[in-house]
Amino acid sequence: MLDRLAGIDDPRVLVSSNTVDDAGVYLMDDGSALVLTVDFFTPIVDDPVDYGRISAANALSDVYAMGGRPLAVLNVLCFPDEALPPEVMLGILKGGQEKVAEAGAVVIGGHSVKDKELKFGCSVVGTVDPGQVVANAGAKPGDVLVLTKPIGVGVLTTALKNEKLDAAKLAEITALMAELNRDAAEAMVEAGATAATDVTGFGLAGHAVEMADGSDVTLEIELGGLPLIGGAVETLRDGFIPGGLAKNRDYYERFVSVDSGLDSYAVELIYDPQTSGGLLVALPEVRVADFQTAFAARGHAPAPVVGRVVSRGESAVNLR
Amino acid sequence: MLDRLAGIDDPRVLVSSNTVDDAGVYLMDDGSALVLTVDFFTPIVDDPVDYGRISAANALSDVYAMGGRPLAVLNVLCFPDEALPPEVMLGILKGGQEKVAEAGAVVIGGHSVKDKELKFGCSVVGTVDPGQVVANAGAKPGDVLVLTKPIGVGVLTTALKNEKLDAAKLAEITALMAELNRDAAEAMVEAGATAATDVTGFGLAGHAVEMADGSDVTLEIELGGLPLIGGAVETLRDGFIPGGLAKNRDYYERFVSVDSGLDSYAVELIYDPQTSGGLLVALPEVRVADFQTAFAARGHAPAPVVGRVVSRGESAVNLR
Repeated sequence: MLDRLAGIDDPRVLVSSNTVDDAGVYLMDDGSALVLTVDFFTPIVDDPVDYGRISAANALSDVYAMGGRPLAVLNVLCFPDEALPPEVMLGILKGGQEKVAEAGAVVIGGHSVKDKELKFGCSVVGTVDPGQVVANAGAKPGDVLVLTKPIGVGVLTTALKNEKLDAAKLAEITALMAELNRDAAEAMVEAGATAATDVTGFGLAGHAVEMADGSDVTLEIELGGLPLIGGAVETLRDGFIPGGLAKNRDYYERFVSVDSGLDSYAVELIYDPQTSGGLLVALPEVRVADFQTAFAARGHAPAPVVGRVVSRGESAVNLR
Repeated sequence: MLDRLAGIDDPRVLVSSNTVDDAGVYLMDDGSALVLTVDFFTPIVDDPVDYGRISAANALSDVYAMGGRPLAVLNVLCFPDEALPPEVMLGILKGGQEKVAEAGAVVIGGHSVKDKELKFGCSVVGTVDPGQVVANAGAKPGDVLVLTKPIGVGVLTTALKNEKLDAAKLAEITALMAELNRDAAEAMVEAGATAATDVTGFGLAGHAVEMADGSDVTLEIELGGLPLIGGAVETLRDGFIPGGLAKNRDYYERFVSVDSGLDSYAVELIYDPQTSGGLLVALPEVRVADFQTAFAARGHAPAPVVGRVVSRGESAVNLR
């Protein structure tokens, strides 16, 4: 329904969302390009500063996923004045600003409204070389897929909501969600990535299907190679199933072919909705070492190779 | 409290909000500048398309108030899926897109969340000549003040909420709120305006106080010269008082000196919160004719002269 509303016929729009949920790329008169995105959500953790960090990292990630560099940020805040003290607002904004500063960008304004339900996020403007935009749509048969953060935060934050997550594990997933995708983005641009997406609400499966359809290829993903957050499978087995997981599976499983004999709980995790997840990057096989070198130079362990791109088959994604 | 969070020490930030509610101007490496703003609110009228038009015009206005030109827009939508049919969402987005297209800009994406309360607005990126940014802070003694839309929509929409506004008046204020401030912005840039602000939630008084404080001057406003929407005084007299009016008066009246003998209902209207209000523009007296010529060339009647700028006195605003 919303396709009709996107500016896809405008030559200034290099990348447009055909839903209302993605980043766009706008060509300026001087040949440079802007990356624009807005994202916000209700608290995923209780600590205001951590919530601010995670939400800002998540919004900035849309710019990184296109190979861009964030410049300036507007805060978006829906705040229940009567239910929460001003210190909570200050904590959220501080956490957000910390991540914006880490990204080399600056908070330049924003908008707040009174609301019953707390929501926070950012609108981000970044810059990208129009010749180096990394979109969903460039993956080629023969490319290799890497994933820069492990999956499973949806399951673990569901346990958190039910007060069944220990402090150490909470600290682990908080750090993971608050981590910027900047280093991954810089490494993928250096290594000539052909396509990338950040893994967020639709889960690995949903975002992989989008990349496969956008690129007219099939993604073969090796379940055994997927980085899973420690304890995610067990937590899922214990019955902590995010609402979004079932929705993602209901919608996307028709596009995913799953080999027989795979662990059914691990398979479920490909539908787990992520918050501020990592980048799923497609690269020519000969450039993977360059990516790992560039990622290591920024202080990271190698990103797991999670599969490869093949010619379009019956399904968008094959899970093996 | 939020002052500490604005990036006011960053040389790339030419204009920053010291609250979370204004537009910012960001200097690019090539010497051009971006104007960034985000604004959204709950429905002000019942018709979805009109609501979309008004909310987009209101968000775009922040760019116009700085003397900028909108380029690209992200939709911000909080939508109650269960309470409202998808046609309402489509209508809102259509109305917004219509105004964005009229502004010569393009909708490039956005973000929607499920919410109990409907809210819609836009994040807007525009461009501005860094040498021609029209901020709050440039008004000079001797300047003349013009106001490009009449005030009183807060009072009249309060009557609307109480089902006491007739269809003709609803059509009048809807058209007023949906009107872009583009022509006013182009005229003021042509005429070399020294300062400008759009008149929105804080009412004429609140935004005038901001301009006076930012410019270290006093604004003398002639109540008799103020353009009031027909019926606004009578509607106020009938008891339709927006919640925001009392809040604005409580906060701003300490900064406003009011001559004795003025009509008390008309005085109240300077505190009336506006939605997508006009521009309050300060111009050198010798340039007022140029402004009116440029405004007329774009199809408008002359904008009423509402006062003048004098050296800073005891009050930020003198109402005479």
